[in-house]
Amino acid sequence: MIRSRHLSAIGLTVMLTVSGLHAGEIVAEQDTQYASIQVVKLLDGLQHPWGLTFLPDGRKLITERTGGMSIIDEGEKIAVDNLPDLDVYPEDAYTEGGLLDVAVHPDYQNNGWIYFSRSRLADGEDQDTVPVLLRARLDGTSLTDIEEIFVSNAPNYPGRHYGGRIAFLDDGTLLMSIGDRGSYPPRAQKTWDHSGSIVRLHDDGSVPEDNPFLDQERTEPELFSIGHRNIQGLVQIGSSGEIWSTEHGPRGGDELNLIEAGRNYGWPVATLGRAYLSEGEFPDSETRHQEGMVDPKLEFMGTMAPSGLTAITGETFPNWEGNLLAGALAGQRIWRLVIEDQTVVHSEELLLHEIGRIRVVQQGPDGYIYVLTDHETDGGLYRIEPK
Amino acid sequence: MIRSRHLSAIGLTVMLTVSGLHAGEIVAEQDTQYASIQVVKLLDGLQHPWGLTFLPDGRKLITERTGGMSIIDEGEKIAVDNLPDLDVYPEDAYTEGGLLDVAVHPDYQNNGWIYFSRSRLADGEDQDTVPVLLRARLDGTSLTDIEEIFVSNAPNYPGRHYGGRIAFLDDGTLLMSIGDRGSYPPRAQKTWDHSGSIVRLHDDGSVPEDNPFLDQERTEPELFSIGHRNIQGLVQIGSSGEIWSTEHGPRGGDELNLIEAGRNYGWPVATLGRAYLSEGEFPDSETRHQEGMVDPKLEFMGTMAPSGLTAITGETFPNWEGNLLAGALAGQRIWRLVIEDQTVVHSEELLLHEIGRIRVVQQGPDGYIYVLTDHETDGGLYRIEPK
Repeated sequence: MIRSRHLSAIGLTVMLTVSGLHAGEIVAEQDTQYASIQVVKLLDGLQHPWGLTFLPDGRKLITERTGGMSIIDEGEKIAVDNLPDLDVYPEDAYTEGGLLDVAVHPDYQNNGWIYFSRSRLADGEDQDTVPVLLRARLDGTSLTDIEEIFVSNAPNYPGRHYGGRIAFLDDGTLLMSIGDRGSYPPRAQKTWDHSGSIVRLHDDGSVPEDNPFLDQERTEPELFSIGHRNIQGLVQIGSSGEIWSTEHGPRGGDELNLIEAGRNYGWPVATLGRAYLSEGEFPDSETRHQEGMVDPKLEFMGTMAPSGLTAITGETFPNWEGNLLAGALAGQRIWRLVIEDQTVVHSEELLLHEIGRIRVVQQGPDGYIYVLTDHETDGGLYRIEPK
Repeated sequence: MIRSRHLSAIGLTVMLTVSGLHAGEIVAEQDTQYASIQVVKLLDGLQHPWGLTFLPDGRKLITERTGGMSIIDEGEKIAVDNLPDLDVYPEDAYTEGGLLDVAVHPDYQNNGWIYFSRSRLADGEDQDTVPVLLRARLDGTSLTDIEEIFVSNAPNYPGRHYGGRIAFLDDGTLLMSIGDRGSYPPRAQKTWDHSGSIVRLHDDGSVPEDNPFLDQERTEPELFSIGHRNIQGLVQIGSSGEIWSTEHGPRGGDELNLIEAGRNYGWPVATLGRAYLSEGEFPDSETRHQEGMVDPKLEFMGTMAPSGLTAITGETFPNWEGNLLAGALAGQRIWRLVIEDQTVVHSEELLLHEIGRIRVVQQGPDGYIYVLTDHETDGGLYRIEPK
């Protein structure tokens, strides 16, 4: 049973602060199969919020794709200064480009590193763009020690399918998804092209010497897996060490994948998606399965456009231990996915059409689940709590 | 893009006729992937409508589980008289029992037979019920020549999981689904018990001599397939002859199956569903796959409670040729399923939360798709048309 509490016009006015906050307004409740939950709106008015991470002191960092980086401190939103202007081609910033993910280093307490991905104009180009990864430290509310530690080698126009999701692994390295850039001829199968891949880096951007494609010729050393279209959800489950991702397919074909080093996930040779009637984007080959290429663990039904993926642990949602939560932009819902023996054995639809297009779902260190919803001018930050 | 046109209070009043009709009100529109559709409300105020069939002269017959049988003639609803009173245990009629499906004989024009399924008190019992199949003819608006041609051999209380869906095959026989009755110990694996099966009959209720279990001992001769929980959607695709069904799983585990003679579909030994925390209904064994038992062709994501299944053909929806449409009660949507080589290769979500709980989806001889929505007092009959 899903119940929404729509804000009355009067209630809305009273609860708005100067900065546009609703202080703890419950906007949705749901008695799910194994947990009764409520959703608290923490922030609205965000411009395409895209990334979320947690500082050890309880503050959060969020990115807005077209609106910069902010510190969220007890519900107050404070702009982060000194974000590098990377000359994003303007049109780009309003489709899929701009500031993307943000993540703190697992050892942030000691080294203070913050990582963020974004698109920028490629060197020497005036419209082709590339996804890049940077790190920096926070000095108060300003970025300092800014370093660009990875630049994709495949500039492209138009600016779409950047990937950009960042995930730290338990071995201290990090992954970043690189979208296939939606270009033709397709690039995701090419190992001399970062597009359509996951790359794996040391925290300073150098290449781990056990990266899986290193001993192959004409191969970019950063590659960890290839054959991806546009991964927007990426997480390692702490207990198992398994790496899971969600990937946008074409029409249909949205995937949940178990990511293993050196594997080829098939795009665009093998896909469960269908051709768009009106577009020429589709693969040269439309095989659903191909030997030597990894099938997804789940093909989402319908058109979900999955974004944001988190693995639940701890006592706040005890019956969801080990479950994955996958957000959906077009699908406007969160899927709870139960994994056993690397197989999805159950799924439950959460908050269907309750709070909008889900860009990020992420469990915080406090055990609550935080959600960013995508909107041009009124994206939101929400907290899912037990009721 | 889904858009609803909600009836204004004034419009509603004007368009209501004495019998509760809305004359051709468009209540929803959707630009789907391969067709732009609109939904016209034809009838409302129905009491748990359950079955729908089409007479050759363009009239329709509908059943209401708790409200009898009616002829729909140009939007006028005319009660069918002389429906046999089968002493349904009252409480039963308000959970899952009562009048169920209705279907006309493929050669109705010559023989006039109408088939309908329902629950009734078992012979000599005062609370145990059974699903039964009857046939009758129409004399004006009255039933005549009423014959009960099949009685399930497994009375049970409480009255749930009746199955009841009827499908005529191209060989002139008919199928009827029999639910597992939700009883313990479970019955769907027992071949001496009709519960949890599909039965196949000649049009007079006699047993076809090629029924698949006939040569086995201690087996009911009507059985066509076993190991079902509660099939609520059942259709043969005309072009391929394939028989497809949708089946309610327990928590999760809603299935689409390709039905073949003599096969065991696993319930409750093998299921993709999960145990309810609070109930003892669940199977003795919780295997997801079992040798000798047929896996579903699709496990629906989430909790759909699928009901109603139709195979689209003809020129009204040319891009949906050969697709299955599966309704969902709990899921309140219709799934368009693309089948290739007996495999579901694509799915699209239609009319999500637009018109309510879907009990029946059925393409009419006129090429339009008719839908019954389930509600205690305000179920509706809708027509889906190209926009």
